[in-house]
Amino acid sequence: MALDQAGLDLLFRQARTHNKWTDQQVTEDELRAVYDLLKFGPTSANCSPARFVFLRGQAAKEKLSPALSSGNRDKTMAAPVTVIVAHDPKFYDQLPKLFPHVDARPWFTGSETLANETAFRNGTLQGAYLILAARAVGLDAGPMSGFDNKKVDEAFLAEEGWRSNFLVNLGHGDESGVMARLPRLGFEEACRIL
Amino acid sequence: MALDQAGLDLLFRQARTHNKWTDQQVTEDELRAVYDLLKFGPTSANCSPARFVFLRGQAAKEKLSPALSSGNRDKTMAAPVTVIVAHDPKFYDQLPKLFPHVDARPWFTGSETLANETAFRNGTLQGAYLILAARAVGLDAGPMSGFDNKKVDEAFLAEEGWRSNFLVNLGHGDESGVMARLPRLGFEEACRIL
Repeated sequence: MALDQAGLDLLFRQARTHNKWTDQQVTEDELRAVYDLLKFGPTSANCSPARFVFLRGQAAKEKLSPALSSGNRDKTMAAPVTVIVAHDPKFYDQLPKLFPHVDARPWFTGSETLANETAFRNGTLQGAYLILAARAVGLDAGPMSGFDNKKVDEAFLAEEGWRSNFLVNLGHGDESGVMARLPRLGFEEACRIL
Repeated sequence: MALDQAGLDLLFRQARTHNKWTDQQVTEDELRAVYDLLKFGPTSANCSPARFVFLRGQAAKEKLSPALSSGNRDKTMAAPVTVIVAHDPKFYDQLPKLFPHVDARPWFTGSETLANETAFRNGTLQGAYLILAARAVGLDAGPMSGFDNKKVDEAFLAEEGWRSNFLVNLGHGDESGVMARLPRLGFEEACRIL
C-alpha cells in the first residue's frame, strides 16, 4: 500500500508554499478536519505538546500584524486563516491522560531543559503534520518563521502560557503568487547509507 | 484536490508507530525515493538543514546499540533500517545554492542562537516529512527520542560536524507489535479559533 502519483504530487512533489490567496474561505469544519488528521502523527511518549491558534477574524489578524516581519505582512493579512503553531511548556500535565500506562510526568518535571526540548521538537513535528494534513484535505499552506515570537506570545498566548513556534497561512492558493521552485540538496549531499 | 480516504488512513488515521518488523528488507532505491519526497517539504528560506544517516548494515547497527535506551534497543537492532535524523549546524553555508536570490548567510553567521534554533526547528520539520514520506511509499516507521545523542554524534557524525535529533526505524511492520492507540487531545483542548 502506497500513495498514488497524484497523492505524492499533492503532498510533496507539486505542493508549494503559497503567498497569494483566492477569495475562497476556510471553514471551521476544514480546520477541525486538519486537526483530526494531524493529531494522529507520532510524538515522543504521545506527549502531543503542540497547540494551535487559528486566526480567522479581522480583529485577530489585526492584532497579529505588528508582530509580522515586513516581508510576511501583506500575504499574511490577506490569508483566510493564519495558524499560530505553539506548544504548551507544561505539556507534561496531560501525560496521565495521553500516556496512562507509565507515570511519565516526572521525566519532565525534573528537567526544564528536557521539557523545553521535548516541547519544541515534538511541537515542531506536529506543525509539519499540520502542513501536510492541510494539503491532504485540499488546502494550501504558507509556513513562515519571520515574526516576533515574544509579541505573538504576549498578544495571544499569555493566558494559557503557551509559546509560539512558527506561523502557517492556510487558504486556497492563487498560483500566480508562487515562486519558482528553489533547488534542493542531492541525496549525496544530505544523506549517508552505512 | 484532496487525498482519498485510503490515503488519509495510510498517512494519518490508520498509520501506527511500529515496534516489530517482518523480514522484508528496505532497498537503497526506497531510501532514495523517501528522500526525493521529503526534500520538497518547506523549510524557512529553503535552508534544508536536515541530514539523514541510514544505518542498514550489521556493523552500523552494532555501533548504534550502546547509545540506545534499553526500551528501544531490541526493536531498533531488529529494524531493517534505522535513520539518524540529524542537522548540520553550519547549514547556512549551503544558502548561496539553496536561496540564491538573497545573501541569507549573514542572518545566521551573526547569531549562533538563531542558527541553532533554525537548524533544530527546520531539521525537525524535515524529520516529520521523512516519517510521512516513508508511509507514503509503503514503508512503516518507528520514531523515537530515547537514546544518547552525544554518543550518536561521536560515533557517526563527528567527521561531518552534524548533530543528532531523533531516530526513526524503517521497515515493513509486523502488526502484532503495534500497541493499542493512545488517546489524543480533543480540538477544544489543543486549539482555539479567533
